[in-house]
Amino acid sequence: MPFVAYSQASDADEVQLIFNETLRNGKSYEWLKYLTTQVGHRLSGSTGAAEAVNWAKAELDNIADTVWLQPVMVPHWVRGIEEDAYIKGSNKKKNIPVNVCALGGSVGTGSGGITAKVVEVKSIEELAQLGSNRIKGNIVFFNRPMDVTLVRTFDAYMGAVDQRAMGPSEAARHGAIGVVVRSMGLNAEDNPHTGALRYESDAPKIPAIAISTRHADLLSQALKDEPALQFYFETHCETLPDVQSYNVIAELRGSEYPEEIILVGGHLDSWDLGDGAHDDGAGCVQSMEVLRIYKGLGITPKRTVRVVLFMNEENGLAGGREYALQAEQKGEYHMAAIEADEGGFTPRGFSMTASQEFRNQVMSWKPVLEPYGLYDFSHEGGGADIGPLSKFNIPLIGYMPDSQRYFDYHHTKEDTFDKVSKRELDMGAGCMAALIALIDKYGTQ
Amino acid sequence: MPFVAYSQASDADEVQLIFNETLRNGKSYEWLKYLTTQVGHRLSGSTGAAEAVNWAKAELDNIADTVWLQPVMVPHWVRGIEEDAYIKGSNKKKNIPVNVCALGGSVGTGSGGITAKVVEVKSIEELAQLGSNRIKGNIVFFNRPMDVTLVRTFDAYMGAVDQRAMGPSEAARHGAIGVVVRSMGLNAEDNPHTGALRYESDAPKIPAIAISTRHADLLSQALKDEPALQFYFETHCETLPDVQSYNVIAELRGSEYPEEIILVGGHLDSWDLGDGAHDDGAGCVQSMEVLRIYKGLGITPKRTVRVVLFMNEENGLAGGREYALQAEQKGEYHMAAIEADEGGFTPRGFSMTASQEFRNQVMSWKPVLEPYGLYDFSHEGGGADIGPLSKFNIPLIGYMPDSQRYFDYHHTKEDTFDKVSKRELDMGAGCMAALIALIDKYGTQ
Repeated sequence: MPFVAYSQASDADEVQLIFNETLRNGKSYEWLKYLTTQVGHRLSGSTGAAEAVNWAKAELDNIADTVWLQPVMVPHWVRGIEEDAYIKGSNKKKNIPVNVCALGGSVGTGSGGITAKVVEVKSIEELAQLGSNRIKGNIVFFNRPMDVTLVRTFDAYMGAVDQRAMGPSEAARHGAIGVVVRSMGLNAEDNPHTGALRYESDAPKIPAIAISTRHADLLSQALKDEPALQFYFETHCETLPDVQSYNVIAELRGSEYPEEIILVGGHLDSWDLGDGAHDDGAGCVQSMEVLRIYKGLGITPKRTVRVVLFMNEENGLAGGREYALQAEQKGEYHMAAIEADEGGFTPRGFSMTASQEFRNQVMSWKPVLEPYGLYDFSHEGGGADIGPLSKFNIPLIGYMPDSQRYFDYHHTKEDTFDKVSKRELDMGAGCMAALIALIDKYGTQ
Repeated sequence: MPFVAYSQASDADEVQLIFNETLRNGKSYEWLKYLTTQVGHRLSGSTGAAEAVNWAKAELDNIADTVWLQPVMVPHWVRGIEEDAYIKGSNKKKNIPVNVCALGGSVGTGSGGITAKVVEVKSIEELAQLGSNRIKGNIVFFNRPMDVTLVRTFDAYMGAVDQRAMGPSEAARHGAIGVVVRSMGLNAEDNPHTGALRYESDAPKIPAIAISTRHADLLSQALKDEPALQFYFETHCETLPDVQSYNVIAELRGSEYPEEIILVGGHLDSWDLGDGAHDDGAGCVQSMEVLRIYKGLGITPKRTVRVVLFMNEENGLAGGREYALQAEQKGEYHMAAIEADEGGFTPRGFSMTASQEFRNQVMSWKPVLEPYGLYDFSHEGGGADIGPLSKFNIPLIGYMPDSQRYFDYHHTKEDTFDKVSKRELDMGAGCMAALIALIDKYGTQ
């Protein structure tokens, strides 16, 4: 296009200027490289998390009008020395080692581990049907696979993750002494996927691990061959006292309506396996890039655009809760909130928890967004960290990239920088900046 | 969905059955693993290409009604021992090595290489303006980057690739003794990208290489610092006598209109750098998978579905030409032809060279295709191998996956199996099978 001053431009020209800016001069990729390869993983309470806070603040200081740290206490769970697990060999056969990792928040078995028979179930319902007589003293093995036929892989995740989140307490109520969960992955693969469990207060805390999908199949077959086999696992994870941490907040102050806040963010913490590249380093650097795009184009938004890098999404959501609490106490007005936490992949659309009027408004922008791969605005969504803002009855929006590759890496050691494409990352930042520019221009309906 | 017999199913149910089948039982990924890691690269005339023909025929024999090899003579260009290139150090400074590779089809420099001053240009037009006085005896360096702001990366490629294809003969006409071309890549990176040049019969054949984008920038800066610098490169590539090779053809014979052929294919040859995973192993195994899906679902199409794995797309298109020639001589009727040659990435749509009536027909199927990521049917396209079928005035269709990552790997040593996602590969096969099922059901308008 010929040069058009931003303020005189049509919606389509504005959106094009935004994408041109990020595709030419975007810093997301460079930022992500630093965050993932120099800081590395950054589980809540870890030194990596503290380093990430300082790094993000320093980078944002270069581009934002105001940057501050919002204190929040977070859990401090540590994995300890590496897990060990095997199917015990019987009749002089060798033990068969399997790939496992402790679930986030789990208690450890301690030295010596636990050894028991295994009861395989496909669901919490099946567990309840078997009952305490069958379960007591055993290890429960939750082995319902994610449904590979669901095109949106997050739907497949939501259809299986109850086993990981609720399985341990459900099994403990029936007297189980440990839990093994099939990893939340769609492929036959060797990496176990970690992720949070949720201990209920009325159930004993028993140790729980994820097993790789390939070894879940192996264990299932071994149980068919020898139902009374013994399984062993040893974990050294533990929960230490809570730690002081921070949400990192930065804003460009609006020129006309500075009290109207458009929020964009991701979560700065990650699991301790891999480097949190897609989950959610990508969402953090893309949110930072939204501000940089404005600076690069020399534009001041009418409304305040605020970046929030939340702490502790993975195992507690303390940052998201604290942010919403503070916003309420200060009487802040959020016009809309956008979260990027589905990976740094190529654009597909935005998911929304919003009024029909706002959905219609976004649909009216489809002609200017579709050339950049954004065409799907039909799904419910938002994001975990911005979820607590639902009390304000504002549009909660999730940046929705393509989901096909997400669970190849999610919560595993494979979630590293080399899995991210520079252009896909840049495009995602452009998508959020474009939507924010349109909301800034027209307000919300 | 509940089980529905295919023949009684709605369009949406049929398409869902197809995707479920490939997502559950797809063989594309396993086939691609073998083709790329066991056969490896397969440049026309190479032993790899011959192996690939035999392998594909054997695999297709298991699923098709008929499989045959269609003879075609192909060029046999070989790279020879590894290229060497550097910016010569002056005033006792060291030589600066740079990453290059010979362009496909280039003559070699032979031992001793060539050494000359470098004239940098941004276009063939600029070369012509400089003229023979300035060019004679020098190396021409074509250094116009691909335009990163074009969302469809193939548009950026088309806007730059004239330098690689036509640059060598254009430079030779002005007396140049060698050509260096900036690699066709969008990122700052270290890998050179090969690809075919086209020597014109009226120009001397001079040696030509691609240089990595990062080293193109380095060379450009070095020329600013020292315009008279000397550049050295040595290549040992050569063109051997043509070799007998084959297109691999397999079909499921139609139950009602067997003489009406719906073609689906990709090209079996690849460049000799990398393993031709995305280009175009992916398109080959996805085309094979279309037949397997029919077998897996126990369906016989009404029309004949024919898979063609073309030989020699990369440096000659002999396979595509021979196929069209034979089709004409036999008086075959092709109803439509689909090619997959844009990588095994997540679906976006189909490009078409077709009548408005056919475009409208495909648009009418959008509601059943969009849930699988297929929403963009607006672009002109098709495929190189099926291009020669344009004389039959039939719809030529290109499967159009997302293009953001394609030029990260294209024609480099990075085009390997690990860059391919199983689900994205399966989805692409499903897309083509779905479109073919709809064409088979309704014919073409």
